[in-house]
Amino acid sequence: MSKILVFGHQNPDTDAIASSYAFDYLAKKAFDLDTEVVALGDPNEETAFALDYFGVSAPRVVTSAKAEGASHVILTDHNEFPQSISDIREVEVYGIVDHHRVANFETANPLYMRVEPVGSASSIVYRLFKENRVDVPKDIAGLLLSGLISDTLLLKSPTTHASDHRVAVELAELAGVKLEEYGMAMLKAGTNLASKSEAELIDIDAKTFELNGNAVRVAQVNTVDIAEVLERKEAIEAAIKEVMASEGYSDFVLMITDIVNSNSEILALGANMDKVEAAFSFKLEDNHAFLAGAVSRKKQVVPQLTESFGA
Amino acid sequence: MSKILVFGHQNPDTDAIASSYAFDYLAKKAFDLDTEVVALGDPNEETAFALDYFGVSAPRVVTSAKAEGASHVILTDHNEFPQSISDIREVEVYGIVDHHRVANFETANPLYMRVEPVGSASSIVYRLFKENRVDVPKDIAGLLLSGLISDTLLLKSPTTHASDHRVAVELAELAGVKLEEYGMAMLKAGTNLASKSEAELIDIDAKTFELNGNAVRVAQVNTVDIAEVLERKEAIEAAIKEVMASEGYSDFVLMITDIVNSNSEILALGANMDKVEAAFSFKLEDNHAFLAGAVSRKKQVVPQLTESFGA
Repeated sequence: MSKILVFGHQNPDTDAIASSYAFDYLAKKAFDLDTEVVALGDPNEETAFALDYFGVSAPRVVTSAKAEGASHVILTDHNEFPQSISDIREVEVYGIVDHHRVANFETANPLYMRVEPVGSASSIVYRLFKENRVDVPKDIAGLLLSGLISDTLLLKSPTTHASDHRVAVELAELAGVKLEEYGMAMLKAGTNLASKSEAELIDIDAKTFELNGNAVRVAQVNTVDIAEVLERKEAIEAAIKEVMASEGYSDFVLMITDIVNSNSEILALGANMDKVEAAFSFKLEDNHAFLAGAVSRKKQVVPQLTESFGA
Repeated sequence: MSKILVFGHQNPDTDAIASSYAFDYLAKKAFDLDTEVVALGDPNEETAFALDYFGVSAPRVVTSAKAEGASHVILTDHNEFPQSISDIREVEVYGIVDHHRVANFETANPLYMRVEPVGSASSIVYRLFKENRVDVPKDIAGLLLSGLISDTLLLKSPTTHASDHRVAVELAELAGVKLEEYGMAMLKAGTNLASKSEAELIDIDAKTFELNGNAVRVAQVNTVDIAEVLERKEAIEAAIKEVMASEGYSDFVLMITDIVNSNSEILALGANMDKVEAAFSFKLEDNHAFLAGAVSRKKQVVPQLTESFGA
């Protein structure tokens, strides 16, 4: 078997980068695999903060497995093919470490698959280190902690699993940081939207879901001030319309998430706004509406859309 | 959450019954879950031998999860919906322990999923006992050993994983049996085809695969004498045609597997015989052909059909 590429999803967030980086280390140490960690995009500002803090270089960006001479891949923090590498259907999936629903995924052969409904893929990778009795180096502990903090908004999201609290405490100790202090600093680094164009803003953390024949793009940005983001609403809508036209999305749902108060504003455009409104039992006014208590795309947005679209 | 049903696939084989029975025990002991093991069919003669040998009663047979008042299920030894309980799409999959390809499977929410490319689902359940430091009772060790022996034809199938040999030795010790002696006795118990009608014979161990829009039924029977089975060829073909018509299968592929010499005769009928012939690079004569060295549906038949059907 040739080299196995390890990577997280497109538009990588901190958990995608952290889980793939750490799993690559573990695969070499514990499973004696010839792996290389890569990424399907550049780190966002939050991830860049974490990488810089722990002195880790960002994985190099690739767009095709076959162009890298790889016939096998290991996916972390995702399993759906539309969120993966461009030629995912032409290579063999050797393994998966993920914490999402399983969908739009199919293999011809048996594989290694470890999915748990916990707060982050990083939480699972940490458990795999322990199960295989491999010490977690300080920088890797720091990255795994960052992945968990990012995905759970410092353990406040409803996606947080009971087991994640202890994982966070253990990783913070291994990484030599104070959980709350480091966590807020890292999350705030990801809320700097002023330097971003609207086209960049709606692509920071965006995933495409195939719902009953519709390509629904669901993006999320973190902020400490929803109103500040809504001041750019017209320009954001223009960017959304442009990317819908160029990429063929039927709908675009943007979550503008207040990480301090744990709420989201939903800005949505597309062909199925009746289904979006039905999903959240709200009425869009001027294309947007407030969704109290919603911070998790995975638990509080995607399942509701999936059901509403009849997917 | 209401009671969680735990079960293996339709037409349960020994691994399906063993892995679900043992996982149910583990789920109660280690995860404090309110589970009940059930089955999607009666045990075959091989499985009945194993259950009898270790003094375990067969799980009761159910056909619908909702009729049992269950909204959540745990699947062992399968993941594809067409092989699962009739109302699988209407309930939530809480967890999976499996060793097959992943396909025709989708969830709306994250779940527990443990898939490994090893010889049996029983091998994985045994590993879960060890990881969770739960002692394996003698009868459960015996069943898990039986599941592994059945799926790997006593560790001779190419589906046998390097780790399975040690699993077999450990389980045999826990079960208090001699591996080879018990294994051959159990496998031979499953080759008693004389007492079976042709309709029963083609349904002992049969699974449906959706291949590019075709419903392809792939069945397997074990024997110590292929010629003896072929003496019933005309009656078997009549039974196959009948079930194809009543169930809407496009194709039916029967593996008649010689467990002593590790070969199979393929008997196949249906609309896509050109694709079946292409899959195995052989020519069917009078609807059958010899496939030297083939004993594994999963490794030596289904992937080849999947590719040939362009699925």
